[in-house]
Amino acid sequence: MRGWKIIGMLGVAITLPMAAFADDKDVIDYRQHIMNTLNEQAGALGQILSASIPDDNAVAHLNAIALTASTALKAFEPKVPGGEAKPEIWSNWMDFSKRMNEFVQRTADVANRAKGKGKQAALATVLDALTCKSCHDTYRQEKKR
Amino acid sequence: MRGWKIIGMLGVAITLPMAAFADDKDVIDYRQHIMNTLNEQAGALGQILSASIPDDNAVAHLNAIALTASTALKAFEPKVPGGEAKPEIWSNWMDFSKRMNEFVQRTADVANRAKGKGKQAALATVLDALTCKSCHDTYRQEKKR
Repeated sequence: MRGWKIIGMLGVAITLPMAAFADDKDVIDYRQHIMNTLNEQAGALGQILSASIPDDNAVAHLNAIALTASTALKAFEPKVPGGEAKPEIWSNWMDFSKRMNEFVQRTADVANRAKGKGKQAALATVLDALTCKSCHDTYRQEKKR
Repeated sequence: MRGWKIIGMLGVAITLPMAAFADDKDVIDYRQHIMNTLNEQAGALGQILSASIPDDNAVAHLNAIALTASTALKAFEPKVPGGEAKPEIWSNWMDFSKRMNEFVQRTADVANRAKGKGKQAALATVLDALTCKSCHDTYRQEKKR
């Protein structure tokens, strides 16, 4: 405490790596923003796959999932159990990060397939890329909302 | 009913525009997937702007918002009040769609700025692009969760 007081008296602005200020709630909120985005976009895609909604936005949804997948691992790097994240994420980090990187690669492949071969070709394979459940079964403790 | 029976007896697959099958709940669910995505991504960006989370993913969030913004208007085209959408969306469609298209343009501009001038330059202007509140004040009836 005394150290901070002195720093305050010096009247200087101090820049520390921002992660130093991310408290546990911030970390949990942030990764939930990302996982909820994946959930919402997968929900939209599911509606398109079941033909309950037209497929006009299909490519954008595929790109949004690939993009968001690429942000997820970073959000789990701080070792902060809580929310719906099981502690096994960090005790099995090698496996967790491997699976997450595969998810990133597969969703990117589907987005690229849409670009190269069109949305119907991409939609036909997107379920193979959405490996959500197998990972959630191991690493997520779902909470009632 | 009799018509459908006959069609069934013919044993042929019939392709109708998919929108014909989107019932009201589907339409509402779909646009909520999109608006919730925007909300989650704006939440992630807000955490970065307040320096409670490192900015590693900032560009991806800016791109995800721009991409998702581009899908939103299509989701409101079916005139289906309900959820948190006020009927004014459809009675003032010219204004609503104009605002939505401006939102699309502004978020795309910020994503492009990140590409051209870097994430700090983009983050400095992103709040001007996130015109969520002014539109929600007019067109959204927020429900308690």
